[in-house]
Amino acid sequence: MSVYTPVSEVELDGWLRNYSVGRLTACEPIKAGIENTNYFVTTTQGRYVLTLFERLPAEELPFYLHLMAHLARHGIPCPAPIADLSDQYLGSLNGKPAVLVTRLSGGSLEKPQAAHCEELGALLGRMHLAGRSYSAYLENPRGPKWWRFAAREVMGFLEKSHQRFLEKELEFHSEQRFPDLPRGPVHADLFRDNALWEGARISGVVDFYFAGVDCLLYDLAVCANDWCLKDLKADQGLDPARMKALLGAYHALRPFTALEREAWPAMLRAAALRFWLSRLYDFHLPRPGMLVHAHDPEHFRRVLESRIAVPAPWIA
Amino acid sequence: MSVYTPVSEVELDGWLRNYSVGRLTACEPIKAGIENTNYFVTTTQGRYVLTLFERLPAEELPFYLHLMAHLARHGIPCPAPIADLSDQYLGSLNGKPAVLVTRLSGGSLEKPQAAHCEELGALLGRMHLAGRSYSAYLENPRGPKWWRFAAREVMGFLEKSHQRFLEKELEFHSEQRFPDLPRGPVHADLFRDNALWEGARISGVVDFYFAGVDCLLYDLAVCANDWCLKDLKADQGLDPARMKALLGAYHALRPFTALEREAWPAMLRAAALRFWLSRLYDFHLPRPGMLVHAHDPEHFRRVLESRIAVPAPWIA
Repeated sequence: MSVYTPVSEVELDGWLRNYSVGRLTACEPIKAGIENTNYFVTTTQGRYVLTLFERLPAEELPFYLHLMAHLARHGIPCPAPIADLSDQYLGSLNGKPAVLVTRLSGGSLEKPQAAHCEELGALLGRMHLAGRSYSAYLENPRGPKWWRFAAREVMGFLEKSHQRFLEKELEFHSEQRFPDLPRGPVHADLFRDNALWEGARISGVVDFYFAGVDCLLYDLAVCANDWCLKDLKADQGLDPARMKALLGAYHALRPFTALEREAWPAMLRAAALRFWLSRLYDFHLPRPGMLVHAHDPEHFRRVLESRIAVPAPWIA
Repeated sequence: MSVYTPVSEVELDGWLRNYSVGRLTACEPIKAGIENTNYFVTTTQGRYVLTLFERLPAEELPFYLHLMAHLARHGIPCPAPIADLSDQYLGSLNGKPAVLVTRLSGGSLEKPQAAHCEELGALLGRMHLAGRSYSAYLENPRGPKWWRFAAREVMGFLEKSHQRFLEKELEFHSEQRFPDLPRGPVHADLFRDNALWEGARISGVVDFYFAGVDCLLYDLAVCANDWCLKDLKADQGLDPARMKALLGAYHALRPFTALEREAWPAMLRAAALRFWLSRLYDFHLPRPGMLVHAHDPEHFRRVLESRIAVPAPWIA
């Protein structure tokens, strides 16, 4: 589980007096997540999530929190940070930067169908349109610069054939230049477990702590590589019906440009590479105090292989 | 009913494309309220209220909308305005200033008990604390200046004894000076029908379109004169148990000052006078196109008489 910094009920009850959310009635550690300490917090007023930031650079936090606030006030179902009595989102609790956000209802899906991918595509489209008026800037912290850093760090742990594969893939991407693709704030980590559903409707998009400014198309590629897999274990190919639903619903809200169509196969590879690298990094170089088993890096190497072997045709 | 400006589903569906809230699925006029045109709006994303402002001065609207946004992001359960794709809360629909806000669940109470008044007092306390960091300013538009204006307008319609009563009351208040009472943004119209409940919890405070900056104590007086009446029809006296609950819960969050204790009986009279005057005004001088029967002004004259006859002792 991911409680790095314990918070007692007495500490929390005292801390909450900086807010206008009533008195603490319950508090429960959240086991999912590997980056931060999270608690479900219930007060006489409502249900919240408390997050203590364990390792995110403090200078990046305002970008994430204000992005969530911006999207929430545009009607995107994402956690809305609660401002304290000094009108600040970011506080400090037990020595860590801390934030209280609204808790959204719903549960995540294991096996999405085409209709779910259609709903997801529409939500991404609305999120990207709403993000256009967000003015803060943070380069995607897991972009090409970070790939090269992570590749150097993990290279020594890889078998020879994987080393060559990684080097070739980095070389491929170093030749891709997409300066004219539409850019903006992207979630960049919208896996199935970061979307909450109530029936056929997405009731929440959570965990914006990998967000950054990047090609909007990148967000779709991250989603496609998770939501549209033919079979999580046996077949990392992309299911055409779900791909069509995802891209079609998005396209209806923000029509793709010709350059985006051209960039699509490379973008799917980039999204696979980023998660292969981060999983390799967390697997071989776990940070001190990291309490959760790292995900298996092999999965994303196979996704990447599949994207190279079968470049996804444009479907929208 | 209060739909002064009809909006068709086609018009609304088109207008909603300026927002990130999905597609229109249902739209229903709201019959309550006398000042604005309101619709319940349901989209693929969520439930909202659309308000078209019929007569509020355009320059006052930002104060109300940003106050609601401010309180909502502090965790106060009030309607949160939704920003459009240009990042604006205030739009325009069928020639009227218009806003889309979140729709809160819950229903209003007819017969509040002491426990409800305790919950209300705590909510008011939290709302006033959260309002301290709100920087916009609008003098309470229904304050003493407006009383004098309204009194001149309605005087001719009153019978002699009520004319004398009104003149004496205005004279009394002209001698009251409370420059040192704590001030801030107040709701100023928190009657029972403007609070929504889910069980024992207030799930929403709505209709901020009479808000303004005034003595915080004034908000409590408006509430006391409605929530704590012994009997709405037969006895306009104040029920001691509910008064104690209201003031006690508030006091625990924002302790009253000595000056506030002193000002309390006059503040209850001021809150009664304001509603007697506005009801007289709406009754005798209905605005053109006003579609709703005005409330009976007599009720608040009797409330005022009761406050003069039995000055409320301080209970908290």
